[in-house]
Amino acid sequence: MDEKTLMERLGTFKVEVPSWGFSDSGTRFHVFHQKGAARNVWERIEDASQVNKYTGAVSSVAIHIPWDKVDDWKQLSDFAKGHGLKIGSVNPNLFQDEDYRLGSLTNLVPKIRQKAIDHVLECIDIMSKVDSKILSLWLPDGTDYPGQGDFVERQRLLEDSLMKIYNALDDDMTLLIEYKFFEPAFYHMDTGDWGSAYALAKVLGDKAKVIIDLGHHAQGTNIEYIVSILSYRHKLGGFHFNSRKYADDDLTVGSMNPYELFLIFVELNKFFVLSSDSKPALVIDQSAALKPKVEAMIQSVEALQIAYLKSLLVDIDALKKAQLIGDIVLAEEIVKDAFLTDVRPILQRVREEKGLAPNALEAFRKSGYVEEVASKRG
Amino acid sequence: MDEKTLMERLGTFKVEVPSWGFSDSGTRFHVFHQKGAARNVWERIEDASQVNKYTGAVSSVAIHIPWDKVDDWKQLSDFAKGHGLKIGSVNPNLFQDEDYRLGSLTNLVPKIRQKAIDHVLECIDIMSKVDSKILSLWLPDGTDYPGQGDFVERQRLLEDSLMKIYNALDDDMTLLIEYKFFEPAFYHMDTGDWGSAYALAKVLGDKAKVIIDLGHHAQGTNIEYIVSILSYRHKLGGFHFNSRKYADDDLTVGSMNPYELFLIFVELNKFFVLSSDSKPALVIDQSAALKPKVEAMIQSVEALQIAYLKSLLVDIDALKKAQLIGDIVLAEEIVKDAFLTDVRPILQRVREEKGLAPNALEAFRKSGYVEEVASKRG
Amino acid sequence: MDEKTLMERLGTFKVEVPSWGFSDSGTRFHVFHQKGAARNVWERIEDASQVNKYTGAVSSVAIHIPWDKVDDWKQLSDFAKGHGLKIGSVNPNLFQDEDYRLGSLTNLVPKIRQKAIDHVLECIDIMSKVDSKILSLWLPDGTDYPGQGDFVERQRLLEDSLMKIYNALDDDMTLLIEYKFFEPAFYHMDTGDWGSAYALAKVLGDKAKVIIDLGHHAQGTNIEYIVSILSYRHKLGGFHFNSRKYADDDLTVGSMNPYELFLIFVELNKFFVLSSDSKPALVIDQSAALKPKVEAMIQSVEALQIAYLKSLLVDIDALKKAQLIGDIVLAEEIVKDAFLTDVRPILQRVREEKGLAPNALEAFRKSGYVEEVASKRG
Amino acid sequence: MDEKTLMERLGTFKVEVPSWGFSDSGTRFHVFHQKGAARNVWERIEDASQVNKYTGAVSSVAIHIPWDKVDDWKQLSDFAKGHGLKIGSVNPNLFQDEDYRLGSLTNLVPKIRQKAIDHVLECIDIMSKVDSKILSLWLPDGTDYPGQGDFVERQRLLEDSLMKIYNALDDDMTLLIEYKFFEPAFYHMDTGDWGSAYALAKVLGDKAKVIIDLGHHAQGTNIEYIVSILSYRHKLGGFHFNSRKYADDDLTVGSMNPYELFLIFVELNKFFVLSSDSKPALVIDQSAALKPKVEAMIQSVEALQIAYLKSLLVDIDALKKAQLIGDIVLAEEIVKDAFLTDVRPILQRVREEKGLAPNALEAFRKSGYVEEVASKRG
Repeated sequence: MDEKTLMERLGTFKVEVPSWGFSDSGTRFHVFHQKGAARNVWERIEDASQVNKYTGAVSSVAIHIPWDKVDDWKQLSDFAKGHGLKIGSVNPNLFQDEDYRLGSLTNLVPKIRQKAIDHVLECIDIMSKVDSKILSLWLPDGTDYPGQGDFVERQRLLEDSLMKIYNALDDDMTLLIEYKFFEPAFYHMDTGDWGSAYALAKVLGDKAKVIIDLGHHAQGTNIEYIVSILSYRHKLGGFHFNSRKYADDDLTVGSMNPYELFLIFVELNKFFVLSSDSKPALVIDQSAALKPKVEAMIQSVEALQIAYLKSLLVDIDALKKAQLIGDIVLAEEIVKDAFLTDVRPILQRVREEKGLAPNALEAFRKSGYVEEVASKRG
Repeated sequence: MDEKTLMERLGTFKVEVPSWGFSDSGTRFHVFHQKGAARNVWERIEDASQVNKYTGAVSSVAIHIPWDKVDDWKQLSDFAKGHGLKIGSVNPNLFQDEDYRLGSLTNLVPKIRQKAIDHVLECIDIMSKVDSKILSLWLPDGTDYPGQGDFVERQRLLEDSLMKIYNALDDDMTLLIEYKFFEPAFYHMDTGDWGSAYALAKVLGDKAKVIIDLGHHAQGTNIEYIVSILSYRHKLGGFHFNSRKYADDDLTVGSMNPYELFLIFVELNKFFVLSSDSKPALVIDQSAALKPKVEAMIQSVEALQIAYLKSLLVDIDALKKAQLIGDIVLAEEIVKDAFLTDVRPILQRVREEKGLAPNALEAFRKSGYVEEVASKRG
Repeated sequence: MDEKTLMERLGTFKVEVPSWGFSDSGTRFHVFHQKGAARNVWERIEDASQVNKYTGAVSSVAIHIPWDKVDDWKQLSDFAKGHGLKIGSVNPNLFQDEDYRLGSLTNLVPKIRQKAIDHVLECIDIMSKVDSKILSLWLPDGTDYPGQGDFVERQRLLEDSLMKIYNALDDDMTLLIEYKFFEPAFYHMDTGDWGSAYALAKVLGDKAKVIIDLGHHAQGTNIEYIVSILSYRHKLGGFHFNSRKYADDDLTVGSMNPYELFLIFVELNKFFVLSSDSKPALVIDQSAALKPKVEAMIQSVEALQIAYLKSLLVDIDALKKAQLIGDIVLAEEIVKDAFLTDVRPILQRVREEKGLAPNALEAFRKSGYVEEVASKRG
Repeated sequence: MDEKTLMERLGTFKVEVPSWGFSDSGTRFHVFHQKGAARNVWERIEDASQVNKYTGAVSSVAIHIPWDKVDDWKQLSDFAKGHGLKIGSVNPNLFQDEDYRLGSLTNLVPKIRQKAIDHVLECIDIMSKVDSKILSLWLPDGTDYPGQGDFVERQRLLEDSLMKIYNALDDDMTLLIEYKFFEPAFYHMDTGDWGSAYALAKVLGDKAKVIIDLGHHAQGTNIEYIVSILSYRHKLGGFHFNSRKYADDDLTVGSMNPYELFLIFVELNKFFVLSSDSKPALVIDQSAALKPKVEAMIQSVEALQIAYLKSLLVDIDALKKAQLIGDIVLAEEIVKDAFLTDVRPILQRVREEKGLAPNALEAFRKSGYVEEVASKRG
């Protein structure tokens, strides 16, 4: 791919950042507080706009209900626009209500199940108000001990609940079903792997797809393979980008295995180029417990840009030929060659063309924003 | 469940044993040879019949083509019958031909792909001759390095190949698709998880189902959950029973985590009782590198009988009630109570009713069979 | 082992319960509140005494500083005695102070390091006051990202800090060093495995040993092997008992793989019988997020009693003989025979001899304690 | 680091290649044969010299006894020298003799144990004859089932056997003890982790160290941490370089997670620069089942050169400063900056200075060597 095309592609490459990535977070052991961490959705959008200001690569902000709930949704939408951003995917919260102790959409008690459904329906309502097209549903339901729940019965209830949600979607809305290997439940999760999310999405219909969170798999899982299968099966709905070494560590993107991230983009790239399906949502989902929030987000956006750029460098035609003649070494070298290339000069040129500083982190640090909000937000 | 019913259930509980479990096997480092290990299918059936002689719980012998290929299939079928057994599932071999170096059903070279398809069609032909109803397909295809293969293209070819195979099945035949996390391929497997096997089975039709090998998952995978989802989705086709602590270790059944085996049966038991789907195939698939083969198989059959018996002891009605009131501790105690019960007295009584010795291993050891075949087979 | 000896052994078998196991706990997502959950150390000791009241198998209560800090330590000690318990191991807290964001005993800032050391020294002081002999140190220190810390420098600082702590121990006190695979740090832990804890304990001296938390290992780790090596190397200091399927799930003991727990006891049992080293501390460390706290602890104590009893049933002499003649099947059957035996009748008899109800959970439930504290504690 | 120093460092960077990496190998399912694969040690050294011819970075060839056994060791040594190589580490084989079915150095039968010891002593004798200074011992011993062996007794025997071996070493010889998580044993390995290998090396003395095989760990293990601890404890003896995604896959170096390889070198680099210990042995240990052998080895050498070069680019002083002020983001960026740099131009310049082709793989392919040996070796 010639440099001009590369620069064009990168120039239009945008990702969504999560509002919750700008507020204090931590582990079950402790939440370390950061001076100036955003305290509400308005401040979270301000922070998100900073990420965009220095990277030029943020399209929208994912919101989480009720954390980001406001009285006037139009006001929020306008506020975001005023900061150069849209409201992106809407994320229901099914894990913080005492009623959901034994499940939300799978709860055996009809009233609680309905409460959970109603909460998601409320989110769909909010989607209309903020012009969001994506309902991003992570189901924390599961059990901690053998016997606690009946897997089949819970699956039946889940399907039933999801159908009610699905039926409330407008035609141009998409329901993304997220799966997770474990946590917060420690014996079984009701959508514990892509297979179960896929099966649900098939039953629901074309508006339901699967979203892949990079941290939600068993050790060793080949995620790029899952990308390819979901893509082939027309059910690839999006990504929650982050990084992990152990469990769902929610580290900044690409920080543990950048080669894996690159290979995911190589797979995804085929989709970008070839598929007639709607493009998958590209959303960062991280929780920078110790790193400064905005900086961590800038790092992640940049890691995605670099992985994307490198993936575009793979000589697809040469690769196909190498595969055809069964030349494993040559095929691998073609892929590695793209990965080994330092694409940061291209990234910097794109930034310069957009009038941005070549080094986003440095520019942000020099801006004094952190000090400003630290004093302003108290 | 009263003891009489328990005994009846156990009395009719049968599993299939694999012919390959009676011959020498090992690791990539070494194959340790055992005196008297079976050298051909006739001897393998003789050995299998010994397992049945002492457990009374073997229905049939799975065969592997070409390892078990004979000139006269009727003769083999009769030989098995003469030993009180049927020929069970037929297993194609797609991993030992030099042509399959870069794939069999997914190979980019049409001629090799066709060769692989033809081999499976030959297996279907053999099924007719030995009156087998189950084609059990484990696909070893995959890649070792990024770039080596195009996941999507390989999936497309696989689906195409499988469709040709599927269309050759008689109406009363079932195709079981086996998935595996890794090995022999070390970067990706073309059917690497239950989700991809399920998606293929859905496309193919009702005669295609998924078979679960207990050793083919990532560490930590909740297998009983997969059992329940496949069961709920009407795609649970069968099991390859064995045990593992690390990878696909192919150890004797129940030897690493008997509680997991029990929980799998608890889940499966609902299926046995409730579903109108055809019963899943229950097949042992192990490779006792160091243990004497027949003894290892007797251990595995017994481990399955014990797990099955215990699973029947779970008080389903009480469990449902505990689940309904959200009593996690009580629900777990009901499950644990069944597991903690020593069911071996029931097993011994069933054996005695069948005229068998109460201690199968001991009786086999005393029979002198091992010494006999060691001298006979040289 | 004859039943009388079994009963005697079980009768004197005692474990320590953690004070923190009786208060609300949860995941990073949510802490579900339980009515009547203990709010302070006095209530935690009351709850612990209930566990002892129905199991007769609790020796002591582990305390956590500062959570369990009181003004008058003698009063606390007397209060425990009044409830039939001792104060057991003392556990410093090095993970909840904002100063420890980048490490406690390994912090590059001398002042913070000293603060952490001082906190542990304070714990040693408390040990004297409550007559505790065990300092149980879990170090949460580690890093989240490559580059964040210098592994070697941090190890040097850790060794230095520990030496200062070690030197403050009385001669009859033991320092237990706990290791953990990951969490709360997500890239590296300063004591990430038993090897590093062992190396530190060797440098420190005879009063330093290693404590094994069953949930702190990589998937697949053979924990009983670690027990045996630490035992052989005279550095086995104790256990934190709990259960896990995925990460450090802190589930009730034996709930995921009771066979593994039993095998750990088989290994430990040799130590109990043969070694002249001081006995390892047997401490439960669990966090029952959803289960009622006291009930969960009773389950865990009972799971330990059952595992211990079964381990005593292993016919050691027969096992040794089977091992000597290389009879793998027989050796395994001897081990399995012990595990398959239902030892609950023995447990019940021991309880009856002690004047306890045979079913501890049932008796506790009927006692009305839960309802009482729910109303009393508000 | 300035480019001149970089080039000097790379110019003297040498690794050892394994003789066994040039012959046919495979999985337990099948060994795929390659035309022209080396059939004996002479051909293996010829192949190894090809790797050196095109990379200029091979110091020596590890040999495996008895696979590489010859009548005249001086002849072999001279043959290697004639090909520009030395004989490197000597590797005993304790896994292919039927006698070792239940263990070699840990076998309960004194005669078999002595046979294993004698085999290793023979290897030490060979070391003298070929002027090798490194005995590289991988112990395949372990058990497949609970009960099969007594962990403590086996450890005692192992220590005893190793002491006899250790005592036979010349003063300038080093014994490297290799550990492995699992395989070929599937329940426990007698040296299953670095901790047990370390403990043995401590008991034996200064000539005993630990060798790290990158593929011998549980999923998620932080290998660079182990490097640092062994380095700090003066027991880092060497590496077996390869790559894995799942188990001990023995893939070409850096093919699965090049960032991890780089981080290992960052850690190792401190050792290179600072430690007064003898340098660790850098040995490739891979088994390219499907890739052409010489090409696969060239890939691995190049991957090591690239990782080493990148590790040298880390600005250690700046990193230390960032760590001191607790700037996680800056510290990580310093590390990432080195990794993201494309060092291949430097590699090519070093090659050109040595009179080598800049693209080693291409040059080797054009040389016609593969075709030549394919016809010559039949």
